Amino acid sequence: MKIDQQQIADLNQKHSDLHKRQLENLMAVFSGSLTEKVINKLIDFQVALPSWALGAGGTRFGRFSYGGEPGSLEQKIEDIGLVHQLTKTAGAVSLHIPWDIPEDIHAVKQLANSLGIVFDAMNSNTFQDQEGAGKSYRHGSLSSVDKAAREQAIAHNIEVIRIGEQLGSKSLTVWLADGANFPGQYNFQTVLQHTEDSLKAIYGHLPEDWKLLIEYKPYEPNFYSTVIQDWGTSFMLANACGEKAFTLVDLGHHLPNTNIEQIVATLMMKGKLGGFHFNDSKYGDDDLTVGAIKPYTLFLIFNELVYGMENNPQNPPLAWMIDASHNIKDPLEDLIQSLDAILVAYAQALLVDREALREAQQTRDVAGCQEILQEAYRTDVRPLLKEARMRSGAAVHPLEAYRSLQVRKQLIEERGMKVRATGL
Amino acid sequence: MKIDQQQIADLNQKHSDLHKRQLENLMAVFSGSLTEKVINKLIDFQVALPSWALGAGGTRFGRFSYGGEPGSLEQKIEDIGLVHQLTKTAGAVSLHIPWDIPEDIHAVKQLANSLGIVFDAMNSNTFQDQEGAGKSYRHGSLSSVDKAAREQAIAHNIEVIRIGEQLGSKSLTVWLADGANFPGQYNFQTVLQHTEDSLKAIYGHLPEDWKLLIEYKPYEPNFYSTVIQDWGTSFMLANACGEKAFTLVDLGHHLPNTNIEQIVATLMMKGKLGGFHFNDSKYGDDDLTVGAIKPYTLFLIFNELVYGMENNPQNPPLAWMIDASHNIKDPLEDLIQSLDAILVAYAQALLVDREALREAQQTRDVAGCQEILQEAYRTDVRPLLKEARMRSGAAVHPLEAYRSLQVRKQLIEERGMKVRATGL
Amino acid sequence: MKIDQQQIADLNQKHSDLHKRQLENLMAVFSGSLTEKVINKLIDFQVALPSWALGAGGTRFGRFSYGGEPGSLEQKIEDIGLVHQLTKTAGAVSLHIPWDIPEDIHAVKQLANSLGIVFDAMNSNTFQDQEGAGKSYRHGSLSSVDKAAREQAIAHNIEVIRIGEQLGSKSLTVWLADGANFPGQYNFQTVLQHTEDSLKAIYGHLPEDWKLLIEYKPYEPNFYSTVIQDWGTSFMLANACGEKAFTLVDLGHHLPNTNIEQIVATLMMKGKLGGFHFNDSKYGDDDLTVGAIKPYTLFLIFNELVYGMENNPQNPPLAWMIDASHNIKDPLEDLIQSLDAILVAYAQALLVDREALREAQQTRDVAGCQEILQEAYRTDVRPLLKEARMRSGAAVHPLEAYRSLQVRKQLIEERGMKVRATGL
Amino acid sequence: MKIDQQQIADLNQKHSDLHKRQLENLMAVFSGSLTEKVINKLIDFQVALPSWALGAGGTRFGRFSYGGEPGSLEQKIEDIGLVHQLTKTAGAVSLHIPWDIPEDIHAVKQLANSLGIVFDAMNSNTFQDQEGAGKSYRHGSLSSVDKAAREQAIAHNIEVIRIGEQLGSKSLTVWLADGANFPGQYNFQTVLQHTEDSLKAIYGHLPEDWKLLIEYKPYEPNFYSTVIQDWGTSFMLANACGEKAFTLVDLGHHLPNTNIEQIVATLMMKGKLGGFHFNDSKYGDDDLTVGAIKPYTLFLIFNELVYGMENNPQNPPLAWMIDASHNIKDPLEDLIQSLDAILVAYAQALLVDREALREAQQTRDVAGCQEILQEAYRTDVRPLLKEARMRSGAAVHPLEAYRSLQVRKQLIEERGMKVRATGL
Repeated sequence: MKIDQQQIADLNQKHSDLHKRQLENLMAVFSGSLTEKVINKLIDFQVALPSWALGAGGTRFGRFSYGGEPGSLEQKIEDIGLVHQLTKTAGAVSLHIPWDIPEDIHAVKQLANSLGIVFDAMNSNTFQDQEGAGKSYRHGSLSSVDKAAREQAIAHNIEVIRIGEQLGSKSLTVWLADGANFPGQYNFQTVLQHTEDSLKAIYGHLPEDWKLLIEYKPYEPNFYSTVIQDWGTSFMLANACGEKAFTLVDLGHHLPNTNIEQIVATLMMKGKLGGFHFNDSKYGDDDLTVGAIKPYTLFLIFNELVYGMENNPQNPPLAWMIDASHNIKDPLEDLIQSLDAILVAYAQALLVDREALREAQQTRDVAGCQEILQEAYRTDVRPLLKEARMRSGAAVHPLEAYRSLQVRKQLIEERGMKVRATGL
Repeated sequence: MKIDQQQIADLNQKHSDLHKRQLENLMAVFSGSLTEKVINKLIDFQVALPSWALGAGGTRFGRFSYGGEPGSLEQKIEDIGLVHQLTKTAGAVSLHIPWDIPEDIHAVKQLANSLGIVFDAMNSNTFQDQEGAGKSYRHGSLSSVDKAAREQAIAHNIEVIRIGEQLGSKSLTVWLADGANFPGQYNFQTVLQHTEDSLKAIYGHLPEDWKLLIEYKPYEPNFYSTVIQDWGTSFMLANACGEKAFTLVDLGHHLPNTNIEQIVATLMMKGKLGGFHFNDSKYGDDDLTVGAIKPYTLFLIFNELVYGMENNPQNPPLAWMIDASHNIKDPLEDLIQSLDAILVAYAQALLVDREALREAQQTRDVAGCQEILQEAYRTDVRPLLKEARMRSGAAVHPLEAYRSLQVRKQLIEERGMKVRATGL
Repeated sequence: MKIDQQQIADLNQKHSDLHKRQLENLMAVFSGSLTEKVINKLIDFQVALPSWALGAGGTRFGRFSYGGEPGSLEQKIEDIGLVHQLTKTAGAVSLHIPWDIPEDIHAVKQLANSLGIVFDAMNSNTFQDQEGAGKSYRHGSLSSVDKAAREQAIAHNIEVIRIGEQLGSKSLTVWLADGANFPGQYNFQTVLQHTEDSLKAIYGHLPEDWKLLIEYKPYEPNFYSTVIQDWGTSFMLANACGEKAFTLVDLGHHLPNTNIEQIVATLMMKGKLGGFHFNDSKYGDDDLTVGAIKPYTLFLIFNELVYGMENNPQNPPLAWMIDASHNIKDPLEDLIQSLDAILVAYAQALLVDREALREAQQTRDVAGCQEILQEAYRTDVRPLLKEARMRSGAAVHPLEAYRSLQVRKQLIEERGMKVRATGL
Repeated sequence: MKIDQQQIADLNQKHSDLHKRQLENLMAVFSGSLTEKVINKLIDFQVALPSWALGAGGTRFGRFSYGGEPGSLEQKIEDIGLVHQLTKTAGAVSLHIPWDIPEDIHAVKQLANSLGIVFDAMNSNTFQDQEGAGKSYRHGSLSSVDKAAREQAIAHNIEVIRIGEQLGSKSLTVWLADGANFPGQYNFQTVLQHTEDSLKAIYGHLPEDWKLLIEYKPYEPNFYSTVIQDWGTSFMLANACGEKAFTLVDLGHHLPNTNIEQIVATLMMKGKLGGFHFNDSKYGDDDLTVGAIKPYTLFLIFNELVYGMENNPQNPPLAWMIDASHNIKDPLEDLIQSLDAILVAYAQALLVDREALREAQQTRDVAGCQEILQEAYRTDVRPLLKEARMRSGAAVHPLEAYRSLQVRKQLIEERGMKVRATGL
């Protein structure tokens, strides 16, 4: 389906007067140059949607399907195109291989191009066995004590790079699920050494202008240990690989109470933060809508990201992606809400008075530091988002537009109730 | 020291124009009757400050003193008076016995009265040994296997009630630190039975119009088990005592990731939520400034509190108190920030469109439910707080006023640098 | 397949001499009457295996199949029969409906009977949608705001009771997965009230000699809240239903650091502990082999269970079950290891010198209490398990026997590599 | 006080027969060369006791004093001498400056020497303000934005090295408590850079044959962030300092559910594990008796330590220390129990059949790997400890000897009931 741009314009029109007033009110507090800067930053900010996030997610206890799920890679890209048209923030797709191997690369590129979508980081998969695979990953892939399994996993990653090159991607994200369910199941040092060697082998096939992004995660799907369990291990491996290797932070991949913003600051200071996966969680890797549970933490993380982007030239531009699972919401609504929450946190972080903060930190004015952050956080930044959307041709209120344009209804009519998207 | 009310009025004057504009802007979105209702609720909301929170707190690793700490109960009440004058939200004190036994009850009441402060819940202490005490609480108090220790602890609680009666308090809060550091140290069933019996004995001495508030906490100062470890145990004990006994929720007294708002809702539904201790935390009972770490959780809790206050006539009015520790901030600044955060969350919760929420819940519109809560939460409610303060004679921006009036400097001049307040 | 009892006897013979010596050595420390008592208790102890635990488990990220998985209820019961023959501890099955609806009830009963297996608690399922179901449980079942969904879920539970009656079961276990992924998604009080009403409706259909066992769990598959989130909620609901309703504790269903043994003690004291699901975990509901991660905690829990069974006549006999998931081990090996760990912990708990412990607790000898528990825990109790097995006709070393008899190989030959068991 | 060695011998005599039998029984299962090796390893294993652990510990809620606490450094060393005489495992002391600055270094060395005690790692303290200090550490020490505070903290560490050199110590342990209680309080990157620079400055004063041991801890006494929050940060800083700098692991300094044994294995593989602080905990840095809560985890950690000591020549010998707090037990009893638990875990780890384990890991025999670890863990290794003690002249059962010799009673007689040891 296609959304007529005029329809969006008409919907926006209705918001116009109130928006104007709210924006002016905001500009009575913040300077015009600052608000202008924020608006432009918001317009530029683009987040990749992963190809597996367009269908319903699930848990080990089951999955509730959604009508109109995309049945092919093309339909997935079309869905991202719809989200992008409504938000102008989702101008990239992150492909997962082998769930979404393009059959006709040229056609897929053309389709994406026509929708304003580029190909961001490629994702490999060595945590599931594929039909007819020579070796099972039951006991590990890049870390396996079985050399043939390691070689199969390395070859798969190289194949993913090859596909990515044709699509114009510039990075490979490796999430290594390898781990153990039981004490003693493997030797920690052996599997770590295998992992380092395997990553180096993949790194050796990385094109000159590519990055290797190494995720970490403390547990799940393995429940005793995970080979790359924390940022320290990922950082160590990235350093071992070389200067094109970086750590990737997924918000849900931490033990309870971890101070994630501190990790972000440390990695950017060392020039080793390569990418970021957005989601939210209360218990573990819950993969909920971004900002749905801990919006203040998200703000604090953006506070470090903004600081790093302004002060750490040693750190490259980051690969941004939403990595959530949509178990009970319409996936497109969920993504729209996530994009909204990301921009809210980003705008708030951009409003932080950094000069005053530096001064308060320097004079050890603890209560003052808190006031400065809360001043930004308590501000209603939505007028800035709306202005950015108006200027870029997005819907001022994307979720409202999505509903009022009855997108889901049309997708069901086109695709039916029973299609099931590939992915988790 | 005393703050001249005119000084506050002068400071407020400077904020007047911008405030007016911001309030009008807010009223362009929310109806006048709603904003008026919120403003009046904010004016009425009063939070008790505990007598031990006016001095510097500390950890087991040390304590950094603060200049101008109050050296007597009278000075503590004066400090609360200052906070109350600046905020008009701190119109109550919660005394801790034996740290703050009034020597001249009449004089103390008169002093509090002159400052607009009433006496809220009384707090007993059976977690420390007092000089010359007959029995040590090293191995427990109300739960002890030593009958004499139990009796001493019961008698202390009765004494606290007696003092409270003279002051006009109407409730006793029991935080029972009793617990074990090691498996096997005590018999779970024995200590639970002793605790129930001891609480009933105290309950038997409760005046007709009093409430008994029973706290719970999973750990600290004992690190294997705590006799009243969770709301379930407190609720069971309150039911065993009778209809004047209730559970008291302290925000920091939960295991990682506990859904506190659900506990609040359950207790109010059952008419058994008696009081609430505010603070914030990231790891354990960190006792940080309210709203400094998880403001969204605070909002969600207020969302349940507001719902309960409107829909649960079976639940009595609650005793509100701030229970934080001030390790590196000026305690008065910390309290002012806490009161601010409480009102922000309360105002946001009052703005939730409950009719729309009920409708969205009824139609299982999950994304819609989230939008409704976030609409309220993302609103900048500070104009409502400012209006409430203007009307009640508080400072529009209490922290700014506190600093501009140089309150701490005057307290140090009056009291010196080296006084140490009683308490933790 | 069938194991020839003589083969077991032959294998046991080889262990005979060393075993004799080890048992005698143990009896040099503990009295003959005590060791005899322990051996008999071990012989009597029977744990149900759930019908869904005979096949490979999985996570949301995938599942690695196992050769020779049972393809029918009959084959599942045969598998339990094999485990029971090797251990003499698995003399019960716990059925899950609708995964394992018996087609010919009489035949199934006869099969179970021939293998020495009885039918323990029945399990209902309202967390997944069944093919052709009128109502989806996407938004809840017993707690749903949709009356028709609640009625469907109630009717399903009554149907499960009906099937159970024919099989000779005496209890129904309700694990209610209902919950919310997002704040605001439902009203806490409304869903709790619906749940209470639905459970009462089911309770009304409970045969006179049946028990209703109510599980609790803090999260998963819902990641913001769960309707029955903790023992306090389950206990409250069980009390509301009546004296045939009890709380069921699953070891994996707790927040980090929960003191489970204290919950067990409290429930037994109140006569409300109805059943127990064994497994082990490090992070969440990891469903690992019993005793694989925290064997000392398991011992401490058994310490309370033994105390309760000896001192709490108000509490009925418990329903014991293993509820683990077998993601990378042969399910039968996993179950054998779990049964082993259960008996080890039980034997250790039975060796605790309760008289000395009571005395040490009474005299507040904290170090002494610890010594008494550790004395029992550090004892190598395996000779007692071996003796119990010898006497009951089980294999002295069941896992060794399972391997030496090549059970899995025969199952694969009989059933093939590609069958997939129903269940998670 | 002094213990007559003959008294110990007499007590041991009473255990002799049963011990002999139990040891023989163990040797029926394990080879004589293995048991002999284990016994010798146990004899050689020496753990330092910190000078602050001889008195009662406390929490922020209070402290219960103990009779006979040591009132001077000399008395502390005497107490360690008593523990060492009873156990022959506590042949080292770890001093804390400024709590225990020796007045007469020569005399203190002579005293320690006469008791068989050497001086292990020195501990500095920049988390408390000392009387008359020029700069407060309220807002940090080595990480402070205040250059003078940093310089004071660096100078203090250099002074600690200087004292240590005279005593024969060979390492400095830096536990940096610096952190923030509130978001925004400091700039993460700034304080990390200051910390690195400060540590390098201290490292520059390290004698050639010394080691710098850098601790990490996620929280407490600061409750939002800690500068050196995890092993990754410590490892990065140690690498920045140089080859004499190492990470020190304290068992209680981790977030919930951290896999500590994996960290140990990684650090030893990289040659960067310098020291180890023993204690146990359920919730946070609870500082309980070693092995009192999670003995299996302790075993798994020793399993990695033993592996590393046998296979990682790149890693230096480790500094072992007990770092517990004794809130309700007699400190000497607590230390004796801790030493016991350490040896139990060490002996179990030494019994692991490493060749079989390697083989089972190689063949991906997951259940088999678990069996091998549990075989060692379930063994009652106490006969090996007793034999080691017999041979080295320690008491076979140190706690029993401590009590039967009435050590505490004599200490109270000598020192009185009211002395208070310096320290926490």
